[in-house]
Amino acid sequence: METKLSRRTLALGLPLSMGLSRLVADAAAADNATTREAGGPPRIKVAMLVHDDMILLDLTGPMTALVPAMSDIHLVARNRSPVRTDVGIMVQPTSTFDECPADLDVLFVPGGLTGSLAAMDDAATTAFLADRGSRAKWVTSVCTGSLVLGAAGLLRGYRATSHWYVRDLLPLMGAVMVKDRVVTDRNRITGGGVTAGIDFGLVLVAQLRGEDYAKRIQLILEYDPKPPFSAGSPETAGPQLVQDVLERRAKVLAQARTAAADAGHRLLK
Amino acid sequence: METKLSRRTLALGLPLSMGLSRLVADAAAADNATTREAGGPPRIKVAMLVHDDMILLDLTGPMTALVPAMSDIHLVARNRSPVRTDVGIMVQPTSTFDECPADLDVLFVPGGLTGSLAAMDDAATTAFLADRGSRAKWVTSVCTGSLVLGAAGLLRGYRATSHWYVRDLLPLMGAVMVKDRVVTDRNRITGGGVTAGIDFGLVLVAQLRGEDYAKRIQLILEYDPKPPFSAGSPETAGPQLVQDVLERRAKVLAQARTAAADAGHRLLK
Repeated sequence: METKLSRRTLALGLPLSMGLSRLVADAAAADNATTREAGGPPRIKVAMLVHDDMILLDLTGPMTALVPAMSDIHLVARNRSPVRTDVGIMVQPTSTFDECPADLDVLFVPGGLTGSLAAMDDAATTAFLADRGSRAKWVTSVCTGSLVLGAAGLLRGYRATSHWYVRDLLPLMGAVMVKDRVVTDRNRITGGGVTAGIDFGLVLVAQLRGEDYAKRIQLILEYDPKPPFSAGSPETAGPQLVQDVLERRAKVLAQARTAAADAGHRLLK
Repeated sequence: METKLSRRTLALGLPLSMGLSRLVADAAAADNATTREAGGPPRIKVAMLVHDDMILLDLTGPMTALVPAMSDIHLVARNRSPVRTDVGIMVQPTSTFDECPADLDVLFVPGGLTGSLAAMDDAATTAFLADRGSRAKWVTSVCTGSLVLGAAGLLRGYRATSHWYVRDLLPLMGAVMVKDRVVTDRNRITGGGVTAGIDFGLVLVAQLRGEDYAKRIQLILEYDPKPPFSAGSPETAGPQLVQDVLERRAKVLAQARTAAADAGHRLLK
C-alpha cells in the first residue's frame, strides 16, 4: 500500500527528505532551493524518536520548520513497525536505533504522556538517546519528551521545560525547571506542551541557519498566532480548568511522578 | 506493516477514532471521558480531505483539537492509496469518496499549494466536496484548502480567507476575501496559512462543544504562543522577506491564479 517512492526509501533506510519527489513544487520544496546536488551549506542531520501514543502535532510542528531548512530527518524507533499517534494516524519509522546515524546535528524527542512513560522505562530507548545525545550538536524535545531526555540522563544540570502538567518532575532527574515556552541552555533546547513545538522549531532553525532563515519560515507557515481564548497556560486558564485537566489525568500523572523518581534514582546510582 | 487494530479499522471503513486503542490513557483519551458506550452528547462526524502534497500540519492542527472533542474523523480520498505529505510522512486514507458518510457535521479541506491546485482541477474531488458541502453543518478549510472549497462553488457569496500568498484569488471564485486568521461567515469557517489550523480548530470546537470545552483543549495543547520573531504576516515580515517568498513560488502562484480563474469561469457558466 506504499508508493514506489516510499517503499524505496524504506528499503534503503534513507531519511525522509531523500524520498520526497523532486516534482513537489510547494512551500517546503520551493525553499529547498539549495539541493544536495547543487552544493550549498551541508544538510542538517536530524533524528526524531517516534513511539506509540506520540502526539503527532509534537512531531509535525518541528518537522514543518526543519524540512524547508534543508534537513534530512530520520524517524527512529526500536523497530520498523508503524507507531500509533494520538490522532489515530500511523507513522512509519525510517530507521531503527541501530540504523540511525551515529553523529547527529539534532536529536529530538516528541511527547505524548503515556508513550513518554513507556520510553522512560525502556532501557534500549534511554541507551540510544544517551549515546546519540552525548555527541549530537543539539539535544532537544517538545512537551513530555523532556521527561524522556531526563530519564536518559541528558538534562542533569541543565535548565529545561516540559508540558505544564509535568514540568515539576524535571528536577527529580537533575534538571533545573524553567517555566517558559522554549528554554535554551547550552546545546539543550526544550519546549513546552504540544503547540510549543512550532515556537521551538523556529528557535532551532534560527540556531542552525540564522535568524533571517527562521523568519522566512515563520512567514511561510504564517505563524502569526491569534488564539480565540486566553486559556493556554495554567495562569490564564484559571484554577477550575486546571483542576479539571489534572483530575482527568490523575492516574497517569501519578505514574509520571513515579517514573521520574525511579529514573532519578537510577541516574544517581 | 499495519497493526491489527488499524488493519481492522481500514477493512471496515471505520473512522480513525474507532480504531484507537481503549488502552490509550493520554491527553486525548482522558478527555474522551464520555465514550460511545456510556452515552453523552453525540459524537462529531468529520470528513477531512487528504491528498498528495498536503501540508501535514494543516491536518494535525485541527485534528489535535477535534479528537479530544469526541469526533469520528474520516480521512477521505479518491482511493485508499497512502498520500504523501510535505514532511515526507505518508497518511493512509480511511474512506473513499463513495464510502464517506453522506451527512457530516464538519467537512474540512487542508492546504498545500501544489496539492490544492490538483484538487481544484479534479472533477471527482470538487463534485464530492460540493455534494457533502451542500448538507454539512460546517464547511471548513485551512491554508490553501479554501481555494479548493472555492473551486467546488462552496464559497460564493461568503466571506473567507486563505494563506496570505493566495488569498487575493478567492474573489475570482465569488468569495469576499477577508484578511484575518480565522473567518466565520454563517456555516463557513476558513483559516489562514498552515499554523492557523490551531486557532481554527479551537474556533470550531467552541462552535461544536461550547467555549469552556475549547478552552480546556487550549490548556491541554498549551496553546500560549510565543513566536521567537515577529515575521508571521506580510505586514510584520516586511517587503524583502515577502518578495523572497513570492519569487521562489512565482511559477506555482501563477498556476494558482490560472486555476482560480478557470474555476470561476466554470462556476459562472
